[in-house]
Amino acid sequence: MALEAARLSPSLAAAFRSHRAPPFLRRLPLLLPRRFLRTSASSSAASAGGDGRAVALPSSELRKRRNSSSGTSPPAEDNKLRSLRRLFARPDIAIDAYIVPSQDAHQSEFIAECFMRRTYLTGFTGSAGTAVVTKNNAAFWTDGRYFLQAEKELSHDWTLMRSGNHGVPTTIEWLNDVLPSGCRVGIDPFLFSSDAAEELKNAISDKNHELILIRDLNLVDEIWGESRPEPPKEPTRVHDIKYAGVDVPSKLSFVRSQLAENGCDTVVISMLDEVAWLLNMRGSDVPHSPVFYSYLIVEMSTATLFVDSSKVSEEVLEHLKKAGVNLKPYEAILSDVERLAEKGANLWLDSSSVNAAIVSVFRSGCARYLKKRGKTGRQTGKESSSDEPTTTSHGVQNSAVNGLYQVSPVTLAKSIKNEAETVGMKNSHLRDAAALAEFWCWLEEEVHKNVVLTEVQVAENLLEFRRKQDGFIETSFDTISGYGANGAIIHYRPTLDSCSSIGSDNLFLLDSGAQYVDGTTDITRTVHFGEPSPRQKECFTRVLQGHIALDQAVFPERTPGFVLDVLARSSLWKIGLDYRHGTGHGVGAALNVHEGPQSISYRYGNLTALQKGMIVSNEPGYYEDNSFGIRIENLLLVKEVNLANSFGGISYLGFEKLTFVPIQSKLMDLSLLSPSEINWINEYHEQVWEKVSPFLSGSSRDWLWDNTRPL
Amino acid sequence: MALEAARLSPSLAAAFRSHRAPPFLRRLPLLLPRRFLRTSASSSAASAGGDGRAVALPSSELRKRRNSSSGTSPPAEDNKLRSLRRLFARPDIAIDAYIVPSQDAHQSEFIAECFMRRTYLTGFTGSAGTAVVTKNNAAFWTDGRYFLQAEKELSHDWTLMRSGNHGVPTTIEWLNDVLPSGCRVGIDPFLFSSDAAEELKNAISDKNHELILIRDLNLVDEIWGESRPEPPKEPTRVHDIKYAGVDVPSKLSFVRSQLAENGCDTVVISMLDEVAWLLNMRGSDVPHSPVFYSYLIVEMSTATLFVDSSKVSEEVLEHLKKAGVNLKPYEAILSDVERLAEKGANLWLDSSSVNAAIVSVFRSGCARYLKKRGKTGRQTGKESSSDEPTTTSHGVQNSAVNGLYQVSPVTLAKSIKNEAETVGMKNSHLRDAAALAEFWCWLEEEVHKNVVLTEVQVAENLLEFRRKQDGFIETSFDTISGYGANGAIIHYRPTLDSCSSIGSDNLFLLDSGAQYVDGTTDITRTVHFGEPSPRQKECFTRVLQGHIALDQAVFPERTPGFVLDVLARSSLWKIGLDYRHGTGHGVGAALNVHEGPQSISYRYGNLTALQKGMIVSNEPGYYEDNSFGIRIENLLLVKEVNLANSFGGISYLGFEKLTFVPIQSKLMDLSLLSPSEINWINEYHEQVWEKVSPFLSGSSRDWLWDNTRPL
Repeated sequence: MALEAARLSPSLAAAFRSHRAPPFLRRLPLLLPRRFLRTSASSSAASAGGDGRAVALPSSELRKRRNSSSGTSPPAEDNKLRSLRRLFARPDIAIDAYIVPSQDAHQSEFIAECFMRRTYLTGFTGSAGTAVVTKNNAAFWTDGRYFLQAEKELSHDWTLMRSGNHGVPTTIEWLNDVLPSGCRVGIDPFLFSSDAAEELKNAISDKNHELILIRDLNLVDEIWGESRPEPPKEPTRVHDIKYAGVDVPSKLSFVRSQLAENGCDTVVISMLDEVAWLLNMRGSDVPHSPVFYSYLIVEMSTATLFVDSSKVSEEVLEHLKKAGVNLKPYEAILSDVERLAEKGANLWLDSSSVNAAIVSVFRSGCARYLKKRGKTGRQTGKESSSDEPTTTSHGVQNSAVNGLYQVSPVTLAKSIKNEAETVGMKNSHLRDAAALAEFWCWLEEEVHKNVVLTEVQVAENLLEFRRKQDGFIETSFDTISGYGANGAIIHYRPTLDSCSSIGSDNLFLLDSGAQYVDGTTDITRTVHFGEPSPRQKECFTRVLQGHIALDQAVFPERTPGFVLDVLARSSLWKIGLDYRHGTGHGVGAALNVHEGPQSISYRYGNLTALQKGMIVSNEPGYYEDNSFGIRIENLLLVKEVNLANSFGGISYLGFEKLTFVPIQSKLMDLSLLSPSEINWINEYHEQVWEKVSPFLSGSSRDWLWDNTRPL
Repeated sequence: MALEAARLSPSLAAAFRSHRAPPFLRRLPLLLPRRFLRTSASSSAASAGGDGRAVALPSSELRKRRNSSSGTSPPAEDNKLRSLRRLFARPDIAIDAYIVPSQDAHQSEFIAECFMRRTYLTGFTGSAGTAVVTKNNAAFWTDGRYFLQAEKELSHDWTLMRSGNHGVPTTIEWLNDVLPSGCRVGIDPFLFSSDAAEELKNAISDKNHELILIRDLNLVDEIWGESRPEPPKEPTRVHDIKYAGVDVPSKLSFVRSQLAENGCDTVVISMLDEVAWLLNMRGSDVPHSPVFYSYLIVEMSTATLFVDSSKVSEEVLEHLKKAGVNLKPYEAILSDVERLAEKGANLWLDSSSVNAAIVSVFRSGCARYLKKRGKTGRQTGKESSSDEPTTTSHGVQNSAVNGLYQVSPVTLAKSIKNEAETVGMKNSHLRDAAALAEFWCWLEEEVHKNVVLTEVQVAENLLEFRRKQDGFIETSFDTISGYGANGAIIHYRPTLDSCSSIGSDNLFLLDSGAQYVDGTTDITRTVHFGEPSPRQKECFTRVLQGHIALDQAVFPERTPGFVLDVLARSSLWKIGLDYRHGTGHGVGAALNVHEGPQSISYRYGNLTALQKGMIVSNEPGYYEDNSFGIRIENLLLVKEVNLANSFGGISYLGFEKLTFVPIQSKLMDLSLLSPSEINWINEYHEQVWEKVSPFLSGSSRDWLWDNTRPL
């Protein structure tokens, strides 16, 4: 699944920040808040049974649930805005504007329904958008993918801001424009990373506006009231050591050694995948990612998991106890951070992911600690040391005495897969490949029989094939199933009421992935069931050449991913074509389908080196508007390569393929391919046959045979 | 000629700074001061006759001159240090340490002898190095290329600091270590760019040291005394409009439009090639670069050239008068900048190239202006407003009211060649190619006749072949003529007393270039006169594949050069090889052989986009220590390419070759080359034959025929 350049995953954004990206590469999460947040009907999603084993629900079921849970008679749009504005005037709030982003408190890519406040407030169900409400205005920002949808879904009370269009202001420009000087702009500090809040604060201070952190109450929740869905209470489970590879005590030891090295004694982990990885636990609080809502504080001798205790079974409790991890309620995080600050703990906080509520509470606590100690401290300015009940003036500084603000010590460790994780990824990819072979065989037959199948039906059938595989849990993101012109929409999502049928006149792009108990997959193939045009073959072949060039790359250790991006593009550039998304993203092992810190992108801000054991996607594409889309995606494992030389006495790295599904040879223009490219294709297909055919029988085995024959 | 990564040309360094390179990419010019500064015997250099037409002198002649001019009986090393330290105590100086870099006042790559203060003080004749003298210590920093030479040339009074070796401190670390807190560190502010002085000031302030700008007197000149060579007085000449393409009034208009756009009314140009380009003038004050010592101030209605009037002939004077350019003495620059500041001029200063003397005088003047106007201004802190006669505490701030500190408006304009400059470059390259064909033909014959020729003799003979070409002026840098193991030393310079003879047992690398009246060349070829080993052929072919890949690149407009660097390396990386220098540098049109702002490098700091009309070198290499060196270098012109598509509605760019000299096919391992690579070679050689054979006759024409036959 391609990462659109403008929309970085939280951890990638963290990497960008931590590596001193030029300012123009840093984007306020405000504008394009959370990537890939799915708020509308989902083509698949997961729930979990009472035994702690996750099971999948068909999307139709989920849609029903959602419709019922979000209330049968929501108040008219203007009522919501009226209620919200009434809150502005409350003496303990007293704000002139309120910003409602799409985030949850953990910068998650996929979030639980109860946190979809922006959707509730605006009625807009797309994934990306930010709402800003003032006493007299209500404006909503979204990007080009969603202009049509937003026009349809927003009421007349909202002004649609088409982000990226000429002359359209950013949220901040707009706020600075519509508000008279010296206003109070409110946010829920849980929904902004500390860095984002800081950026916002600085930007609005140009017009003397003050950023107000309204910590104890989310204004949208307040008007949502009774009809707001409950926070998820899905049970967690232990991620078996045979898949995790390293036990929790060892991981905690590693974190503690990092703390010691950096002169800290405590770290707050708030990214849900980092908590899950560190504790060898998994959950199903949100669709597509096997995570659970929680925070983790690791101190030198103790560790505390902040989680709803109802999610923790006896088995999980035992697992945690063995590792010396205590439990506290999810909500206790702030008071614990406060306690730590007040006792003078040296905290490591990843301010690119830890929310502003936590960081501001920590800083206030530090101020009190220093006051008690009779020190003046280095903190200056507006930092509020009073204990106002609900609002604080936002005074985040980077000079807090006891805080180290840098990327979490877990981010890089998690991205470098150990032997067990690698084996799990390889095994799950083979089962996934078998499901895909069965699926493609089935779909080809259906299309040739002229059976009418919509993009949504195809995606649901794919889910059925995957569901039959051992260890399958759920999809790792909403399937992108795009026929013809729909394939040209990079993050297209078919919906029941407006989707095409698969035919044999055009290209069909299918980008999908799964969560298995031992691994996470993400694969894109583009096929034609009829006769592709020479233009389609030329474009497909150019994309394939880019895919092959990146796959075959060998590079010195310490090479950042962006250096390799050009290899995937240069074949397209040669004929004046390109694609508007990155070439590769990190992938978790039985975790998030997008993870940092590495990436392969034409943006140059991410200086993270590709390292042995990292996993990246290789997914160049080409999209011809209103016509067709092409993408070819495999996942790759970064490995050390043994060469005759090692100039500079360093290691040289390369890639090992994890994905083994045929690439349609009908779409290749052989005249454009070099002998070595043809070799690559033949060798790949030979490997596909050898590795995947043992999982198949009957017609799907025949299909695999046919589709892996040498060119 | 390859740009070593760690040593950026002044304008490239400027580009690095201006584009917000991550701090680790910014290097203090202190450590590795001026690239390619040639201080020892030069294998070629130029002088100019009285008629203003530059003529070349053989290097032996120049060596004689230098030896005589630098005095027959220099004082012993300790005398120099003793004299220097005596000056430390003078009440109007009062410093504890003095830093002597290799620079002149213009950040020039090649500098005049009278400015070679570091060489005079230390006795070290290599190009790179910084001397730091305290009351009790004298230390000298240089890089790996010069360790042996420095050991030989430095007296026992000096501690050699081997930069880059483990545990060796930087100059600043060392200063902060050896000096007690609160010392005064002196520099000649003319020899540091304002940015470099600012960095230095900040770095030493960690130990409460103060940076003292000793403006009116260079302490080394003071002890050099009578024996110091005179500043160069070589005549300047008009650069014909048929080569310049655009007249001076038009160029000045352009600069003024840039000033207006940026809210400025005045700019100070201090880079010598920028002055020469803007005024369509050339000079010969320094070897290899056709420039003359000067500053230029452009105001909205006037322009003033600060230059020794004895360098300006009647013809040049007339040329300047026509363009509305006044003359003032070179030394008047500071008082004029002061005058401008005091009248409230809004100055554009490129603080990465303009020296700290000028910037500090400007800031002091601004402070007085504001005082007079009764304004408080935004300047704070230590800025000295007193008129101390010789020293000022360094108080450069970036917040000066009337200054705009960004890259000179001339830098980019100069890099984008106009039609006339392009034609001049193409023509001069063909004549240069003819000289090289004659040279290679001659050398091959000599070697086959077993004539013993040293690396120096070969370089001097090459100069003779070039001298016969129309419009030849001088070499554009010291020829790198390296046989066998010497070829592995990237910036090898043969000397008379220690150089090899060319044989037929190993590779011979020859990197050379020339200044013509209409263009500047820079070319490297590597050849074998006997039977190359399979290893040499493999390495050569890999380098060639990188060269071809970059040459054939097509890329969207706005692509920075570093994005393409990997194309030149990936063939080497595939077998675990690499090279430790950039792949391409900008080249001036009848100007400096290295110019910015563009480059093609594995360092990612330079975000300057390659633009139509820019010239870059394409020079991948491979160097096997103690064995052989390989480099293949052509110059390329960036051009727009017409393609069937233009995705994104933008231009796509590619390269046009300027260099037409055969690449030795004997060194190619054909089994490694793809059909398209073989095509590239054959097409290139066909072009070489077509373009260069008309300039040749007899045996050199036969040689060209033989060496351009299809593979």
